[in-house]
Amino acid sequence: MGEKETIEKLEGLGRKMVGQVKEKKSPTFETPLRSRGNIEYDNAVGFLRLGDKREERRFLNVAQARTFMQTVAVANKTKKFLIEDLHTSIRGLYYQLKFSLGENLDESLFEEQTESNALIEDLEVAMGIKREDLHLTTDRKGVVAGNMIVKDNFAGEEITINCAKQGRSGWMIPSDVDNGMEFVDVKADYVLVVEKDALWQRLNEDKFWKKDNCILITPKGQASRGTRRLIRRLADKGIPVYVFTDCDAWGWYIYWTIKTGSMNLAYLGRDFSIPEARFLGVTMADIEKFGFLKKLTIKAKPIDIKRAEEMMSYPWISAHPEWVKELKKVVKEKRKIEQDALQGKKLTFVGEYIRKKINNKEWLP
Amino acid sequence: MGEKETIEKLEGLGRKMVGQVKEKKSPTFETPLRSRGNIEYDNAVGFLRLGDKREERRFLNVAQARTFMQTVAVANKTKKFLIEDLHTSIRGLYYQLKFSLGENLDESLFEEQTESNALIEDLEVAMGIKREDLHLTTDRKGVVAGNMIVKDNFAGEEITINCAKQGRSGWMIPSDVDNGMEFVDVKADYVLVVEKDALWQRLNEDKFWKKDNCILITPKGQASRGTRRLIRRLADKGIPVYVFTDCDAWGWYIYWTIKTGSMNLAYLGRDFSIPEARFLGVTMADIEKFGFLKKLTIKAKPIDIKRAEEMMSYPWISAHPEWVKELKKVVKEKRKIEQDALQGKKLTFVGEYIRKKINNKEWLP
Repeated sequence: MGEKETIEKLEGLGRKMVGQVKEKKSPTFETPLRSRGNIEYDNAVGFLRLGDKREERRFLNVAQARTFMQTVAVANKTKKFLIEDLHTSIRGLYYQLKFSLGENLDESLFEEQTESNALIEDLEVAMGIKREDLHLTTDRKGVVAGNMIVKDNFAGEEITINCAKQGRSGWMIPSDVDNGMEFVDVKADYVLVVEKDALWQRLNEDKFWKKDNCILITPKGQASRGTRRLIRRLADKGIPVYVFTDCDAWGWYIYWTIKTGSMNLAYLGRDFSIPEARFLGVTMADIEKFGFLKKLTIKAKPIDIKRAEEMMSYPWISAHPEWVKELKKVVKEKRKIEQDALQGKKLTFVGEYIRKKINNKEWLP
Repeated sequence: MGEKETIEKLEGLGRKMVGQVKEKKSPTFETPLRSRGNIEYDNAVGFLRLGDKREERRFLNVAQARTFMQTVAVANKTKKFLIEDLHTSIRGLYYQLKFSLGENLDESLFEEQTESNALIEDLEVAMGIKREDLHLTTDRKGVVAGNMIVKDNFAGEEITINCAKQGRSGWMIPSDVDNGMEFVDVKADYVLVVEKDALWQRLNEDKFWKKDNCILITPKGQASRGTRRLIRRLADKGIPVYVFTDCDAWGWYIYWTIKTGSMNLAYLGRDFSIPEARFLGVTMADIEKFGFLKKLTIKAKPIDIKRAEEMMSYPWISAHPEWVKELKKVVKEKRKIEQDALQGKKLTFVGEYIRKKINNKEWLP
């Protein structure tokens, strides 16, 4: 999505409304419904997405006028950011609106991240663009190492970053990995996504990404938008993606959000999901396979059991007998295992584990 | 602190205990008390630190035997990490202990971060070293841009990173900025620590660090150990440090923790505090100075009021009339202001604000 195209889309939105006013009609804003009833898992493509239901918001409607006006104000402000060629966060946008709309702008509407998000999501969905295209920066936290060159066209300069030369730190995944950013000379047999930064640091110290020719990524927990987009872009180059998390509620959630998206993020669709992703571990089955792990399991928390049961009710998970077997084991044994446990016998075992699992194709779908 | 020296300290600890056993005495472990009663603000040096009270733990003591044994086990394992030249996290250490000490190792002792920390803190304080020196990695999250070269001697390779050539991402501050790491060619008039990553991204896009010749750091909220060490090392080069946060409970806490340390971290002493740091803003006084901010204040939360009142009771804060005036204003007006608000009128105003405040020496101690 080029900036020019985004500006045109925003202007199109405005022109349509002006046309409606000229025809003495109420301006309208049409957007796909983001409520649960309109979220579906599309089996053919392998991710959660919005269905066909749409809603039309009308300016001349007491219940909708305020939000309608604010949506238009957001569109107007972000167009200004695009023209000025400057970026800010949602919070920066809030203060810009507060300043121009005055004291009357209800602070609580923007105070809660979920509420302020709603207005941005409206625009993203209605116009088929990403908030990053609107020059809105987002939280960032993932890190990368591997044989890959980043061409970062930023603030009037082209910066080249070699992700194989970032030492102990790694390259920090930015908010926007699309606009003005290219990934070239990507030499990797696969992408490895490691839930925890501590494990990433462990593998980075072993130069695992060099020895095993992979792109080593940690989302540092739940993946940020930037991290998900980066994985998507690497998968688009035909590189297999393996995800390596704890065997617990949070780990599974991280994996399935990367793979299929989540209910809350279903509106993002394919751009932010990687149906090709495979789950490498840690699995309950590993505990049998690697004997020393037996004494390193820990007690599952109620949330882990509850989550395992919930997951078995999702058709896109229950369709995989391997996953059902795993989850049933957690529910039955009430134990779980963390990825950190792989270091219990030998710190460098983590790399051996990953190599073995990939070579033996021991992953879950 | 060289690795050899750390190993010698660990061995000294062991030798002393072996000597005690040979003399048929109970092995002992002496450490400064970390409880509130032994924490003092040292006015001469400007940070919180432990007093002279010490405690002696004895192996042959029913209440202390278990922890004593675990402290020795931690010393033993970390010595092994040093000799193997490998790093891991506290969680990795836990699993190493769990594997070698067996099922009987109480998982809950290490499960809680605070509890597992306690054992490490014992060793840090007793031996006068940092956990990073014991090859334990810690959470990392800060980011840097500026005219500075990092020489990272890591995993058998020397990597050079130019913090002026990191594009939109910046250089991610690692867990350990001391062992095998040098900062050279630091060309900066000052260090600017910006609480929020969103503001850092804003200033980085403006190339503020280049235009204003500063080192631009965001701790992304509360500063990690690595970030505090980096700021300390830059301050040791004689570069002034300015901290720029929200005008609220959390912002002040971030500032004072950077400057003087905190109660919980008092055991770290000077290595992790920067008494030279100055508070640039945002301040309640700014609201008057910059007229457009008046409509951009928000309602203070009860925690902000409570925190302001608490802070006035700390002698190292109440000693500064400027701070008392600020805090009283918050308590009276029950309003606060975020650093993001500076973008309300114009996105690029943030830089102008910082320049103006520094040029006019408008900071708080």
